[in-house]
Amino acid sequence: MERKWKTGISWHFDGEAYVRGYKLFDLIGRLTFTEGIYLVLKGDLPDDREKEMFDAILVSLVEHSIAPPSIISARAVASGGNSLHVGVGAGILAFGEYHGGAIEGAMRFFQENVDKKPDEIVKSYFNNKIRIPGYGHRYYKEFDPRSVKMLEIAKEKGFYGKHCKFAEEIEKEIEKIKGKKLVMNVDGSAGAILSDMGFDWRIGKGLFIIGRIPGIVAHVYEELIYEKPFSKRLDEEKEAEYFGVKPRELPEKYYK
Amino acid sequence: MERKWKTGISWHFDGEAYVRGYKLFDLIGRLTFTEGIYLVLKGDLPDDREKEMFDAILVSLVEHSIAPPSIISARAVASGGNSLHVGVGAGILAFGEYHGGAIEGAMRFFQENVDKKPDEIVKSYFNNKIRIPGYGHRYYKEFDPRSVKMLEIAKEKGFYGKHCKFAEEIEKEIEKIKGKKLVMNVDGSAGAILSDMGFDWRIGKGLFIIGRIPGIVAHVYEELIYEKPFSKRLDEEKEAEYFGVKPRELPEKYYK
Amino acid sequence: MERKWKTGISWHFDGEAYVRGYKLFDLIGRLTFTEGIYLVLKGDLPDDREKEMFDAILVSLVEHSIAPPSIISARAVASGGNSLHVGVGAGILAFGEYHGGAIEGAMRFFQENVDKKPDEIVKSYFNNKIRIPGYGHRYYKEFDPRSVKMLEIAKEKGFYGKHCKFAEEIEKEIEKIKGKKLVMNVDGSAGAILSDMGFDWRIGKGLFIIGRIPGIVAHVYEELIYEKPFSKRLDEEKEAEYFGVKPRELPEKYYK
Amino acid sequence: MERKWKTGISWHFDGEAYVRGYKLFDLIGRLTFTEGIYLVLKGDLPDDREKEMFDAILVSLVEHSIAPPSIISARAVASGGNSLHVGVGAGILAFGEYHGGAIEGAMRFFQENVDKKPDEIVKSYFNNKIRIPGYGHRYYKEFDPRSVKMLEIAKEKGFYGKHCKFAEEIEKEIEKIKGKKLVMNVDGSAGAILSDMGFDWRIGKGLFIIGRIPGIVAHVYEELIYEKPFSKRLDEEKEAEYFGVKPRELPEKYYK
Repeated sequence: MERKWKTGISWHFDGEAYVRGYKLFDLIGRLTFTEGIYLVLKGDLPDDREKEMFDAILVSLVEHSIAPPSIISARAVASGGNSLHVGVGAGILAFGEYHGGAIEGAMRFFQENVDKKPDEIVKSYFNNKIRIPGYGHRYYKEFDPRSVKMLEIAKEKGFYGKHCKFAEEIEKEIEKIKGKKLVMNVDGSAGAILSDMGFDWRIGKGLFIIGRIPGIVAHVYEELIYEKPFSKRLDEEKEAEYFGVKPRELPEKYYK
Repeated sequence: MERKWKTGISWHFDGEAYVRGYKLFDLIGRLTFTEGIYLVLKGDLPDDREKEMFDAILVSLVEHSIAPPSIISARAVASGGNSLHVGVGAGILAFGEYHGGAIEGAMRFFQENVDKKPDEIVKSYFNNKIRIPGYGHRYYKEFDPRSVKMLEIAKEKGFYGKHCKFAEEIEKEIEKIKGKKLVMNVDGSAGAILSDMGFDWRIGKGLFIIGRIPGIVAHVYEELIYEKPFSKRLDEEKEAEYFGVKPRELPEKYYK
Repeated sequence: MERKWKTGISWHFDGEAYVRGYKLFDLIGRLTFTEGIYLVLKGDLPDDREKEMFDAILVSLVEHSIAPPSIISARAVASGGNSLHVGVGAGILAFGEYHGGAIEGAMRFFQENVDKKPDEIVKSYFNNKIRIPGYGHRYYKEFDPRSVKMLEIAKEKGFYGKHCKFAEEIEKEIEKIKGKKLVMNVDGSAGAILSDMGFDWRIGKGLFIIGRIPGIVAHVYEELIYEKPFSKRLDEEKEAEYFGVKPRELPEKYYK
Repeated sequence: MERKWKTGISWHFDGEAYVRGYKLFDLIGRLTFTEGIYLVLKGDLPDDREKEMFDAILVSLVEHSIAPPSIISARAVASGGNSLHVGVGAGILAFGEYHGGAIEGAMRFFQENVDKKPDEIVKSYFNNKIRIPGYGHRYYKEFDPRSVKMLEIAKEKGFYGKHCKFAEEIEKEIEKIKGKKLVMNVDGSAGAILSDMGFDWRIGKGLFIIGRIPGIVAHVYEELIYEKPFSKRLDEEKEAEYFGVKPRELPEKYYK
């Protein structure tokens, strides 16, 4: 009979934990954490180039200010009087379609279209008014320096493959068709590189989570250590506004 | 062999769902939702007095402004591009020790101390500088009108029992010892009444959640319907401040 | 300047909480919880027929056995040593597309298609192999008694409107085209009635959550009261299976 | 005026993201992820010894079988039809007091007691029947090989300081007083080392989360890729049992 709980990730053999076939004990003191992450996700150990490329991508995600919704939710939950892990969990929940989803979106776009013609794809997206994920930036209008750097590293490490090439062609086609540049942003370049490293787009959000979780942990810890409980409460008069019905009387019949 | 998953709440008999022994089908159109909640939590159907008392308590919790951390986290998570249920889940996570915990705290206090002497308990709490849960209010200094009303209803319905009596004695003792009044607030009165209705303090937070969830659902729905994605993002310049280290150079050795 | 946090649900006027324009204090002891929920969600008080219809729908959802993923996640999280609200939050998170989404799906289907021709819609869904939400049941092949009852109540209370009529026509068209019956299930009938009550499909999952939360609270409470911590742990040998790579040696180079 | 949202972790200067004072851009391709994590959490870059010690600890946590509650909740939530991040969030929520809390518990124990006399502390814990966190193992009765290895690395890297020494003395005192050995387990040794590295115990759970999240991501991905939706549902007949009231009739009065 097939069991409901099945896994290919890890198991116990003779009471010892094994991860992807390797004894966990043997990995301690021998792998870097990045190698460990790669092994767990991909099923095999990375070589040096893969490890270094992976490090570059994860470091680019490690923390990104107090502003985003994930930090708001994480710190608000912590301020309600919760343990650190509950705040961290609430932070991760914020990573919906519009937050942290761009790498995954770009990976999907590249992986599903890489064998098609760039100009035709760009045209069809523009005609259907669909944004192409991984392009455009609020400040950078000529080039995104992070993407330039990422792609440089990819070339150096041997991960500038068909997805990266395709990603650059898409950037050019967008400029042609739109008449102005939408720079390949860091989600686009990371997405292209991860695709050339062989990562399935459906794990893209997971890579973002692994990369960003140190930042969330640090923020929740900061909230718990430095702030008073319930500090994350809105001041109705200064921070909120009401657009609902004015005060009104409860109808007579309820006063029976 | 004992099974890992055991329950006394509901089960299927002959393919039909039963809740606390009653066929779910039979309850539809016959019970109010309040009676259904009471049945699920307490194991038996309420009589009219129990139902009406329970209604009063749940209505008092149903919604309480956009300000608290639970609404901040719920709306922040929704704004990240999530489905309604994920925002609602994040809202509930905010109900930690300092948010929505006061009814439970008051219930616990009453249930663990009701057979002791009020003056001695108050003294020992004051000597150990522990706040007694369920007393004190920012605005109400003479009496909390909601508690007055709640206790009135409790008397009318027959739930002014030993816990309510004890709660009022505690209020008096606090005034004696402290020299000024700390009014029994709505968490205190609801906690005393729920104790006299026979609810275990360890389900107190659950009652709060059931009561407040309509408000959370309404806020998440409002966020999803009226606001743009990612609307819940801080403006660093206007809303946040930084107390960390100033910009500094990465040491030479990292530029190899 | 427009503020980031805006709401039409509730507000404080002169230090008093108002919900949809009514002073919260006035509602206590005067509304049933069901009326309170309706007010918070819809913005106005229900009349008796609306209240009773709403009660029938919420009661039908109140609890449904230990089996579904929401109870598994809620109890597993509780067993990790968490407070009740964290388990409840994890339970709600399980309400994804395939769990508790059917009412919403049916509401959406009815609201988006009610003015079209039933036979054409059914044909187009069948041709595109898309399941029509709200139809079909594992056991009930002739009719779902719960739907029969729900629709009866709807007729009695005056909520058998164009969506309910449409829902029954769809059921007939499915039988014609498929050659066998797919009964309108309880999600279908509840979805049609809620549509005729004027509820937007996008709040459908919220109604499900409000209805089901008492069951989740009861299960988490049961876990915390009756079970040992960490009780929800798999027995690898009896409950799980491994399909991954066999134990293997860590390559030489890692033993430097 | 003091702002509600304050942080010392990261900030934008001239539109560029800085983390702990370093330009994020400069870190990409120069730091390993482990160095990045260390920087975010501790505020400064690690030297090589710190980096390697940190790697050893994080690798020891990276994944640990399908059995624990966190994987049950993560996969159950995913099976409800949710995006990857929602399942991962639900997994983290399971890390309560009894799951993943042992490192933090051990860190706290060491940090609060390191300057006291080991024999007196052990006696007082035993007299008060409190378990000392970080000692005891189901299988290992003479020594836990992982702890032996960890402490070896700590000595090599220079992190065998007063907390590690204290931890070993506690192990000996337990044996003296109890008459049999309770081996220092991996939570104990990691906790002692992290204490000697200068990590505050209150961030202990955060280190566990960062270390374990790759495993959770891998499990949720596996669930989404290989399993059918709703696969994580209990079979009432085979997996659950009911201890509640038998089917009973709804009283007459409800059939009015």
